[in-house]
Amino acid sequence: MCQLLGMNCNVPTDICFSFTGFQARGGLTDIHQDGWGIAFFEGRGCRVFLDPRPSTDSPVAELVRSYAIRSLNVIAHIRKATHGDINLENTHPFMRELWGQYWLFAHNGDLKDYAPTPGKRFRPVGSTDSERAFCQILNTLALRYPDGPPPVAELHESLRALAAEIGGFGEFNFLLSNGEVLFAHCASRLSYIIRQAPFAEAHLTDQDVTIDFNQVTTPRDRVAVIATTPLTDNERWETIAPGTLLTFRDGAPVEMQNCATRPFFRPTSCPSP
Amino acid sequence: MCQLLGMNCNVPTDICFSFTGFQARGGLTDIHQDGWGIAFFEGRGCRVFLDPRPSTDSPVAELVRSYAIRSLNVIAHIRKATHGDINLENTHPFMRELWGQYWLFAHNGDLKDYAPTPGKRFRPVGSTDSERAFCQILNTLALRYPDGPPPVAELHESLRALAAEIGGFGEFNFLLSNGEVLFAHCASRLSYIIRQAPFAEAHLTDQDVTIDFNQVTTPRDRVAVIATTPLTDNERWETIAPGTLLTFRDGAPVEMQNCATRPFFRPTSCPSP
Repeated sequence: MCQLLGMNCNVPTDICFSFTGFQARGGLTDIHQDGWGIAFFEGRGCRVFLDPRPSTDSPVAELVRSYAIRSLNVIAHIRKATHGDINLENTHPFMRELWGQYWLFAHNGDLKDYAPTPGKRFRPVGSTDSERAFCQILNTLALRYPDGPPPVAELHESLRALAAEIGGFGEFNFLLSNGEVLFAHCASRLSYIIRQAPFAEAHLTDQDVTIDFNQVTTPRDRVAVIATTPLTDNERWETIAPGTLLTFRDGAPVEMQNCATRPFFRPTSCPSP
Repeated sequence: MCQLLGMNCNVPTDICFSFTGFQARGGLTDIHQDGWGIAFFEGRGCRVFLDPRPSTDSPVAELVRSYAIRSLNVIAHIRKATHGDINLENTHPFMRELWGQYWLFAHNGDLKDYAPTPGKRFRPVGSTDSERAFCQILNTLALRYPDGPPPVAELHESLRALAAEIGGFGEFNFLLSNGEVLFAHCASRLSYIIRQAPFAEAHLTDQDVTIDFNQVTTPRDRVAVIATTPLTDNERWETIAPGTLLTFRDGAPVEMQNCATRPFFRPTSCPSP
């Protein structure tokens, strides 16, 4: 199994604090030694740092930890290989372009005997179940919406159905982002926290590091951090219920409960809760 | 205008020496200050480092220069913006997946009023003429060869024709690689050198740095380095003739002169020169 970390914000924010704790799980406080990766959206562009080495022993991870890249959407992953060799092409997050947007994807879990009919358009480069699932998602979306992305509630519903379908093959926790929104699917284990004013101190679980968010924020900042398990031990994290897809935008989940059961629902006609 | 650097080898080789000289052109010995990028194939996977800051003032460039990533195919670019803002999505090299392979592309030159009909599949994320040209190349190849790559001589000929067509809009020097071969198209300025036994010393043009390749090679190594202008001042670089596409494999250009005039020629039936 692997570990996921995601961040979605309303102002560009660095992930140095959370990454410090997360990085420790790649060989120091946990066993996820089979590579790691982190990807940052900056505007429409993307920086992807991948390393098949353990994150605790990676010069690239040191750079990421010390070089404060500010981003609205970040996806990180540390790997405990279940399918596919330990090499660069099997290292998450994976990236593709669809509709003139980059899409990033990272997966935690294990899909058994998952061999979908290969799509014509997006094909895996490596040999993981995860990249196969990512390509399957994108091939389905590209066929269904050939001209461009649908409204976010419709995309949410399509992804929810796809997640349930692929989740029939095993554990399918994932993070997916196009730089505007971040989708988080919980199959078994995924938590999140929203940090906003009034800000407080936070202390990492995996390292003895404390930060006072009052010192590094403005009152309007809002940041959602999503992780396989909580990264801090003095804050209240929300556990996402298995079988749930959340869509984060501007640092909080978009309310779509009332829309979720209607296929291809447009947000403009969604009744208020 | 921009500067290109490419490397194609028969054994995984680090690019630290060449990159040291190249990096200096991003603001120190030359004016290309509008960002830089470098991408390394490792197996089927790719590491792409991008930075919209000048390469002489980039912590990411420092990491690349000091962390010896060994690769068979490398493409690097430093930018002097002509089309498109200075931001991450306009920073070369660009990457896409086609046929289950990653493709990397970087361009030097200036395409005037280049606005091809947008393809259905590969779309630019940023606003450069370069990314439009890359997407046009991939859309054409994907339509022409939907199931997978053709033999390399056929691909060479298709790319040669595409380069001539797009080159009608302006200067179109580019490097393109799928990790197996590296295509280098010279429209105006591009040189290369093949380093193989007997190896000698080399001295950079842009920095006072010397390397003795005898100390870091084995007799079977062969490395082709391709650059906008020669990176060393004591070696003989070959100037590529404008209008030429070279295909590098295993550290040397593949001989295709006798095949190049025949459309969709298969290498197996190509007569010896």
